Amino acid sequence: MKKIGVLGGGQLGRMMIQSSMNLNIHVKTLDADPNAPCKAMAHEFVQGSLNDYDTVMNFAKDIDVLTIEIENVNADALIEIEKQGTTVYPKPHHIQLIQDKRIQKQFYADNNIPTSPFVLVDSKEDLDQHKDLLPAVMKIGKGGYDGRGVQVMKTENDFSKGFDGPSVFEKMVDIDKEISIIAARNPSGEIKTFPAVEIVYHESNLVDYLLSPANISKEVENKVKEISIDLLNKLDYVGLLAIEFFVDNEGNVIVNEVAPRTHNSGHQTIEGNITSQFEQHVRAILDFPLGDTKRRSPSAMVNVLGEKGYTGEAIYKGIDEILKLSGVYIHLYEKHITKPERKMGHITIIADDKDELLRKVELVKKYFKVIA
Amino acid sequence: MKKIGVLGGGQLGRMMIQSSMNLNIHVKTLDADPNAPCKAMAHEFVQGSLNDYDTVMNFAKDIDVLTIEIENVNADALIEIEKQGTTVYPKPHHIQLIQDKRIQKQFYADNNIPTSPFVLVDSKEDLDQHKDLLPAVMKIGKGGYDGRGVQVMKTENDFSKGFDGPSVFEKMVDIDKEISIIAARNPSGEIKTFPAVEIVYHESNLVDYLLSPANISKEVENKVKEISIDLLNKLDYVGLLAIEFFVDNEGNVIVNEVAPRTHNSGHQTIEGNITSQFEQHVRAILDFPLGDTKRRSPSAMVNVLGEKGYTGEAIYKGIDEILKLSGVYIHLYEKHITKPERKMGHITIIADDKDELLRKVELVKKYFKVIA
Repeated sequence: MKKIGVLGGGQLGRMMIQSSMNLNIHVKTLDADPNAPCKAMAHEFVQGSLNDYDTVMNFAKDIDVLTIEIENVNADALIEIEKQGTTVYPKPHHIQLIQDKRIQKQFYADNNIPTSPFVLVDSKEDLDQHKDLLPAVMKIGKGGYDGRGVQVMKTENDFSKGFDGPSVFEKMVDIDKEISIIAARNPSGEIKTFPAVEIVYHESNLVDYLLSPANISKEVENKVKEISIDLLNKLDYVGLLAIEFFVDNEGNVIVNEVAPRTHNSGHQTIEGNITSQFEQHVRAILDFPLGDTKRRSPSAMVNVLGEKGYTGEAIYKGIDEILKLSGVYIHLYEKHITKPERKMGHITIIADDKDELLRKVELVKKYFKVIA
Repeated sequence: MKKIGVLGGGQLGRMMIQSSMNLNIHVKTLDADPNAPCKAMAHEFVQGSLNDYDTVMNFAKDIDVLTIEIENVNADALIEIEKQGTTVYPKPHHIQLIQDKRIQKQFYADNNIPTSPFVLVDSKEDLDQHKDLLPAVMKIGKGGYDGRGVQVMKTENDFSKGFDGPSVFEKMVDIDKEISIIAARNPSGEIKTFPAVEIVYHESNLVDYLLSPANISKEVENKVKEISIDLLNKLDYVGLLAIEFFVDNEGNVIVNEVAPRTHNSGHQTIEGNITSQFEQHVRAILDFPLGDTKRRSPSAMVNVLGEKGYTGEAIYKGIDEILKLSGVYIHLYEKHITKPERKMGHITIIADDKDELLRKVELVKKYFKVIA
């Protein structure tokens, strides 16, 4: 039985376990939270910091392949683990590249991957020299996550809201749509991409819901697929890569950012596609043939976030109403404590057509609440 | 978080955990085998005998609902547990009824559930008085499983092969097809049935493969559905019930036997139907609304059995070939040791039409082998 070590014990790791148990994969998990979502499900659960060099080194001693479910890990340890002969996928230098938005952005520029105009700055003090990029977005190089570390700047009056560390300062582009492609590549070089999905954001900058298929032309769909394949090949990447694109009104596309792992924008593949993103990642890192990514039916995904104003032992309202709906799948992450906007789960919806899909999305949003 | 206790830690319990984790269900499992398939996945795993009264009593002390994944359990303990106020589904007297094929058969006769002509006998010594039923099948009342405890008798010369204990002696019926209906009922009285599936047996009397939809007329489909609903209502049953039917050439149907749990003939529902049998059972015993049982696409299921001639640490041959096929899902049960014809897993196949389905069934049977 192959033994996979996973850095991170959150919901992404949990759903990877749920999928990989079908292939008798032994999963060992590391997470700082003793009650992480993977706690009960992993074959072995180790409590410890993903950022501590020695903890990560020790964790990897008895595994066949090391992977991640969050990119905020000690990359120096990954490099050393790989050097000592244990397989690490995604490759450590790719995780490093993606950990730093500056290096990531520069890679796109150097490799003809379409991206928005930008400059690298050392802190907000530098912004005065780049007023020509306004309106713009300042993104901290390292450590941003889920909307944190990102600051929109419409005029130079906003410069004071900027960050003090090394950042990317990029021109804001006209966005018609935001779409995502989940792509996978195995060590043998086989590549498969999932169909593009459309991401609809909530005002809080967290994903509100997600639609598959995305409402884009065949031309745009082909374009983002080609760019994704090009990017994976240029990186010589192994594993799953989630690639977020901006599409403007004329159908021009640019890469916004990527994540070297399974991704929120791929959750609906569990029920919506022939192969799920979780199984695909496991196939990729174990050098199995990649699975068919074809859509089985139109699908949508709604994040389940803790209601504002509630912190404490989670209570789920509306389970009965949701379970009465056909083709609506609740996925909870076994997080005991809810907080405002904490991701507590997601709900996937399948339907024969888009109207029916959106009708059910509205019902899900109306009925399902996490309070305390 | 609701805590379910499950008697039995085999593959049926394992797939129930895989499904119920989506609803944050806490699963505690009891099994005599310290390496049972549920070992790594259950929130709590207790090693102990399902037939030992005190073991079962102690196991049930801190749970909300007790259920089973195998019917060979200490039913006296279940009755006492229910008496002491813990919910047990299926109800203990239904488990008892099904544990004894004699009581089960008599229930059908008493309640107008179509079944084959039979007599109850105390041992093979009684058979001489019932030659009129030949050709017939002798089935031991208690303890038979997977073809054990069943003896076909063509002439009176076969009587010596019979059993020494209380048994059912039933007329052999002309069988055109064997089909199965998985039905569920919750405490509120809601009933849902899955579409009928067709069971194709291997010479060894274990299921070879299974087809959904079954190749039967709409009339037969309606008939078995009606009988299933009638049976659940007459029993006042709660939980999942797998009902196996014989169909003759004229479209007459009779109930062969039932299992008070998730069943091998429902495995393909994981990928083939809107709701899986495992989720349906959990919904039923927790009195949630039952899920839509509709078929998403034609599906087939092939059992993965240990090859004859091999005993020892399991080795799986053909994984790469299978993973290359679209819509083919490997489910392994994390059984470390293979034995001839031991159920080591199953493979579900989905396809747009029956020809494609059967083509893939043949490929799966050709490539996938468990050796040691």
